[in-house]
Amino acid sequence: MKRIGILTSGGDAPGMNAAIRAVVRKAIFEGMEVYGINYGYAGLVAGDIRKLSVSDVGDKIQRGGTFLYSARYPEFGSEEGQLKGIEQLKKFGIEGLVVVGGDGSYMGARALTKHGFPAIGLPGTIDNDIPGTDFTIGFDTSINTVLESIDRIRDTATSHERTFIIEVMGRGAGDIALWSGIAGGAEQVIIPEVDFNMEEVAAKIQEGRDRGKKHSLIVVAEGVMSGNEFADELAKYGDFHARVTVLGHVQRGGSPTAKDRVLASRFGVRAVELLKEGKGGLCIGIRDNKIIASDIVDTLENGKHRIDLDLYDLSKQISF
Amino acid sequence: MKRIGILTSGGDAPGMNAAIRAVVRKAIFEGMEVYGINYGYAGLVAGDIRKLSVSDVGDKIQRGGTFLYSARYPEFGSEEGQLKGIEQLKKFGIEGLVVVGGDGSYMGARALTKHGFPAIGLPGTIDNDIPGTDFTIGFDTSINTVLESIDRIRDTATSHERTFIIEVMGRGAGDIALWSGIAGGAEQVIIPEVDFNMEEVAAKIQEGRDRGKKHSLIVVAEGVMSGNEFADELAKYGDFHARVTVLGHVQRGGSPTAKDRVLASRFGVRAVELLKEGKGGLCIGIRDNKIIASDIVDTLENGKHRIDLDLYDLSKQISF
Amino acid sequence: MKRIGILTSGGDAPGMNAAIRAVVRKAIFEGMEVYGINYGYAGLVAGDIRKLSVSDVGDKIQRGGTFLYSARYPEFGSEEGQLKGIEQLKKFGIEGLVVVGGDGSYMGARALTKHGFPAIGLPGTIDNDIPGTDFTIGFDTSINTVLESIDRIRDTATSHERTFIIEVMGRGAGDIALWSGIAGGAEQVIIPEVDFNMEEVAAKIQEGRDRGKKHSLIVVAEGVMSGNEFADELAKYGDFHARVTVLGHVQRGGSPTAKDRVLASRFGVRAVELLKEGKGGLCIGIRDNKIIASDIVDTLENGKHRIDLDLYDLSKQISF
Amino acid sequence: MKRIGILTSGGDAPGMNAAIRAVVRKAIFEGMEVYGINYGYAGLVAGDIRKLSVSDVGDKIQRGGTFLYSARYPEFGSEEGQLKGIEQLKKFGIEGLVVVGGDGSYMGARALTKHGFPAIGLPGTIDNDIPGTDFTIGFDTSINTVLESIDRIRDTATSHERTFIIEVMGRGAGDIALWSGIAGGAEQVIIPEVDFNMEEVAAKIQEGRDRGKKHSLIVVAEGVMSGNEFADELAKYGDFHARVTVLGHVQRGGSPTAKDRVLASRFGVRAVELLKEGKGGLCIGIRDNKIIASDIVDTLENGKHRIDLDLYDLSKQISF
Repeated sequence: MKRIGILTSGGDAPGMNAAIRAVVRKAIFEGMEVYGINYGYAGLVAGDIRKLSVSDVGDKIQRGGTFLYSARYPEFGSEEGQLKGIEQLKKFGIEGLVVVGGDGSYMGARALTKHGFPAIGLPGTIDNDIPGTDFTIGFDTSINTVLESIDRIRDTATSHERTFIIEVMGRGAGDIALWSGIAGGAEQVIIPEVDFNMEEVAAKIQEGRDRGKKHSLIVVAEGVMSGNEFADELAKYGDFHARVTVLGHVQRGGSPTAKDRVLASRFGVRAVELLKEGKGGLCIGIRDNKIIASDIVDTLENGKHRIDLDLYDLSKQISF
Repeated sequence: MKRIGILTSGGDAPGMNAAIRAVVRKAIFEGMEVYGINYGYAGLVAGDIRKLSVSDVGDKIQRGGTFLYSARYPEFGSEEGQLKGIEQLKKFGIEGLVVVGGDGSYMGARALTKHGFPAIGLPGTIDNDIPGTDFTIGFDTSINTVLESIDRIRDTATSHERTFIIEVMGRGAGDIALWSGIAGGAEQVIIPEVDFNMEEVAAKIQEGRDRGKKHSLIVVAEGVMSGNEFADELAKYGDFHARVTVLGHVQRGGSPTAKDRVLASRFGVRAVELLKEGKGGLCIGIRDNKIIASDIVDTLENGKHRIDLDLYDLSKQISF
Repeated sequence: MKRIGILTSGGDAPGMNAAIRAVVRKAIFEGMEVYGINYGYAGLVAGDIRKLSVSDVGDKIQRGGTFLYSARYPEFGSEEGQLKGIEQLKKFGIEGLVVVGGDGSYMGARALTKHGFPAIGLPGTIDNDIPGTDFTIGFDTSINTVLESIDRIRDTATSHERTFIIEVMGRGAGDIALWSGIAGGAEQVIIPEVDFNMEEVAAKIQEGRDRGKKHSLIVVAEGVMSGNEFADELAKYGDFHARVTVLGHVQRGGSPTAKDRVLASRFGVRAVELLKEGKGGLCIGIRDNKIIASDIVDTLENGKHRIDLDLYDLSKQISF
Repeated sequence: MKRIGILTSGGDAPGMNAAIRAVVRKAIFEGMEVYGINYGYAGLVAGDIRKLSVSDVGDKIQRGGTFLYSARYPEFGSEEGQLKGIEQLKKFGIEGLVVVGGDGSYMGARALTKHGFPAIGLPGTIDNDIPGTDFTIGFDTSINTVLESIDRIRDTATSHERTFIIEVMGRGAGDIALWSGIAGGAEQVIIPEVDFNMEEVAAKIQEGRDRGKKHSLIVVAEGVMSGNEFADELAKYGDFHARVTVLGHVQRGGSPTAKDRVLASRFGVRAVELLKEGKGGLCIGIRDNKIIASDIVDTLENGKHRIDLDLYDLSKQISF
């Protein structure tokens, strides 16, 4: 394979630029060419495509977001859209495609693969909810961003003796809540993967107070309910005056951490190695600290992201 | 005066610990003693008071919040509460008091002064809304915290071509919104001090789009309306899909900036100098880059914080 | 004046991009055109000049360094170089020039002015050593960068009971050392503007130890001597095992703080206002919290940056 | 086992406090008691020991350094010191010990184990050079601290077209250099585990220049040589004007990252689980993303930290 394409799709995540950079540089190192496609599948269908050089990815590794822009484009779910996309790729002489994004992006890559066009998916989302990998590009940055906010809120909580509820992202997954909650020393972490009982939540806050604890931080994954709903529910069980913070889109941005940049680089390099050998229909991941490639169809159909429940148990044992 | 007290009151602000540290160290440098009062006026009335040594303020200058804790205590509005507070101060042999906080805290200091007890107010609040000073302790940290969030949100905004609305604190004042909005390169800044017209807001976003601008950031001060209300109103004027971020309590926390730590130190030192000379009934501020002391009664009754409207005009000229 | 130029010169400083952005946007707001000159005076003489649009300064306000690049170019000290520069400016139809930089840059602006070409200097350097202003663009960012490092070193110092010496930049000025030293709670600050006695430095460390102080931080301005020389000298006075950290070029980089971005914006806007009126031969500054413009010849010949010695006295009173 | 002790030893690392906190909380959760030993083995021998409660570890998880202080204490290499330490432990009724530190700390734990006292080692050092684990507590924070500095230096490098050499810590290991170099987009990474040829280094810089590259960053591990020596050597091969930054002790401090806090928590919890079962003579680690416990004698005698050479190869392929 001599010419490959790359696009970013779905919600952006810190480290996407590092992945693009690694794909471009590794491909050029291997004597291949890389074309960048703007605005994800929308740009693919529209032919918003250009050649990328080494200098196009200079001074980008440290930047949040994606310089190829991203977009959600449900039209790519139709066969018509997919064939149009392949037509564009062929027009530019592109023989293989790297897609960086979440599960919607993988669906597109799977569709291209089914049509015989080699596509490889890289997991890029802060939510860490993609099957086929332990960690996604952007997750580490995101939990550190949340952590900074928790640390700041604790300053205020400590000064005032209050209960604070912090709603974090994660879509249906509790990974951001769990990791940032443990790291932030939150008293309680509420995630969609584990049922909770509001009466017990209230009792635990009360126990802390009885022990002289001056403040309480509860991290709630958006997949459970909103922070405000949670506060309203909690108020039914006692006089807790909870303050709610909804961290919102700050969690998606920021300069990627070292781990995210290295992970993105490793994923990008592996994707090029596989495409160079003519392999497609795969998604890259890290499993047990090793870079792996899995069948994208099988992964989407039978894989499932699983949160680390041992970590959840741990949180129960050291947060009280 | 040989023995003084210090308390922090109202909403906490980064740099309060630096102010306490400066008061303690300067007083000890001058051969005086300092007593710390926990939980603001509530702790004053309750007699939650202890002597502070140099080592009590060690390793504190970099910490957010206030290690003396803070509390709102409306009961101090009554003469009964005030006299009880003075009784406690006298019990501990305290001859003068430094109060760090917002206007509620100043009210208490004024009341003590009217009862003949020398009290000095230091402006400590992120909102920058205290009369008698150009800048308050905590404001600089707060605008930098907001700025980090704006920078992060811009990563995502740039990647996706969207309108983002960021609601920031400030109570009735627009200072946080104005400074962070200019520094963050926000397209529009909405503050309570200046009327705005939603139709014009919408038109300005549309003009940007027509010029090819991919995203738009609007910073809204909480004193105007909530970010969600703003988005709902805006939606009446066009198809803007605005995403709202409410920055919340993260704005109150964090390690203070260099400017806030130095400002707090200068304020604290001046307060001790004045109390040493037996002077009370004053509030400290910085005006035109000089540390000043004003009559606290006069300042509260006739002073008024004024936002820098020249800066607002500037924002109109370089943000579009 | 309808067309102006802008260049950055000398050592780069965080906020230079914000200044360029403000100049470009304000000029366009006023119906003027702006040309960017790469690599300072070197690029001016070489004619490395291009028109800047609003989108050229998009997504730049948060970036460290200068996207117009900078260079030292002593050849601009000669009349020949200056006349060549003016020739290039005229070739592009440029009628006035904004120069952002340190005193070397001001010299160039003064020379152009003497040759009848209107030039305006903006103070851009982390060192805060430019006459005609209380603060320079980049100084606030720099002291916060140093402060972060001091805070990190204190973690280690506290854990180990050691003396740490931190060498900071500032050329001949002690401003960075003084502000970051006070903000960082350093025990001693050594600046070129005030003589020091190594025997007293050693005695002060010893006094701290005798009081039970576990560690000691000394901030040394590079204008005094290097950190390593300082440690060697100190070692002659006792068993201090000082660890030396030379902060180096990290102090020049990083995303500018809110204050630096706002200051740079205000300076840039004022420069355009003056050029629009046909005025040159000036340098912009902030004095007592007000934006001012001074005669550049007079400022360079008779002005002198003065460190705030009151702040130095304050440091003596609260750092021990 | 009902009562355990904990100490931190050797160079401090961010996350040590999180480890102590996890040990204290997990032990209390299991109905055990924890005693904290100040100043590592020195404090153990001196009996500087106290009971730790849940509130002693409150508000500590986010702090750099170690609140139990650390010290190097070669005297613990002697049997006399070791037996004195065990005597102190018995005096306080302590039945097992957790040691957080580097290989010197492990030596002490091994000695205690050989004398029949159950001790468990947790790998705590920024250098990532401990056998028995893929990652140490503090490494992730350290590479992010270095990365921030590299990002800052690149601002200046980009503005000026220069070669920058950054000397980073790591003792005999190149892990900090390798990870931060890849993440920082450094053109070259020089580590002790792989021979290098200065002529090739120079040639690579020259190639970059010939391609139009404006600047070059080289990260040098301290285990190879000092940054200044490297610059002097490099200067023999061409006109490179390299600027050197020695990052120094800032790399040891700072608030720990999310990953370091979670890793430290997992290590601490596992240590308590093992001691509760009466097991000692082990060291905890993470291997292939799973928490493991290995025999400490075997690990020290036969284990060896191995840098990830695949990652080094990767750096060669995407950094040029």
